[in-house]
Amino acid sequence: MDQRVSLVTLGVNDLERSIRFYRALGWEPHPSSVAGEVAFYQAGGLVVGLWSRRALAADSGTVDSGGWGGVTLAHNVVSRDEVDSVLTDAEAAGARIGRRAAETDWGGYSGIFIDPDGHPWEVAVNPGWTIDETGRTLLR
Amino acid sequence: MDQRVSLVTLGVNDLERSIRFYRALGWEPHPSSVAGEVAFYQAGGLVVGLWSRRALAADSGTVDSGGWGGVTLAHNVVSRDEVDSVLTDAEAAGARIGRRAAETDWGGYSGIFIDPDGHPWEVAVNPGWTIDETGRTLLR
Repeated sequence: MDQRVSLVTLGVNDLERSIRFYRALGWEPHPSSVAGEVAFYQAGGLVVGLWSRRALAADSGTVDSGGWGGVTLAHNVVSRDEVDSVLTDAEAAGARIGRRAAETDWGGYSGIFIDPDGHPWEVAVNPGWTIDETGRTLLR
Repeated sequence: MDQRVSLVTLGVNDLERSIRFYRALGWEPHPSSVAGEVAFYQAGGLVVGLWSRRALAADSGTVDSGGWGGVTLAHNVVSRDEVDSVLTDAEAAGARIGRRAAETDWGGYSGIFIDPDGHPWEVAVNPGWTIDETGRTLLR
């Protein structure tokens, strides 16, 4: 199994609400999305999908515990101003702020927003990682 | 907010067990990982992290519901044989098989394994998507 992730699917309870939320952050569904059913986003070198949480649980062969299940995404940027502005936009779009932006004990700067379905996103500057010109996040 | 994901952190209950599981699938932690604390993997253009689920919940400003929380990852490959072999390797390494590999109603071929902490991975061939020479998964 190569060290690659192709798709991150977020289970949602109201697809249109979720599309509106991510659109407010600047994310636009790909034309291959299916109205009322699934939204796909080209997110750098992988795909983010929004799909019915109930369908996703069944398709994944798992049981939905109804809350957060141990996965947090991160969106890394290069400036603290960008962290602040993404969090401001997310809150304006209806996100809950899980953690206000602040310096971190690992030498970075980050905060957390939580999307309408409870999926947390850390928005971070990590001075130890590189974001290359194509948007890839590289360990070094 | 650019359409990018930089990091997917999977909360785990036993870091060494999880490192062994992913190593059995061919994933090797990056040297910047911190023994006993966190493992990082360069996974194409993003990073996958394994970190204490309890710490991740606290850091994310959320409450842990204890089970699956609406996120499923996928690893796309180009041949059915690869789907079968990854699922075989995952099961041998201790994964539960959430769904046996089979043809899908969207014209592909996929199955699901569930890692030791309950995180599901779909392993899939999707003839409608492209995997380029650098491992990026591209919608078209």
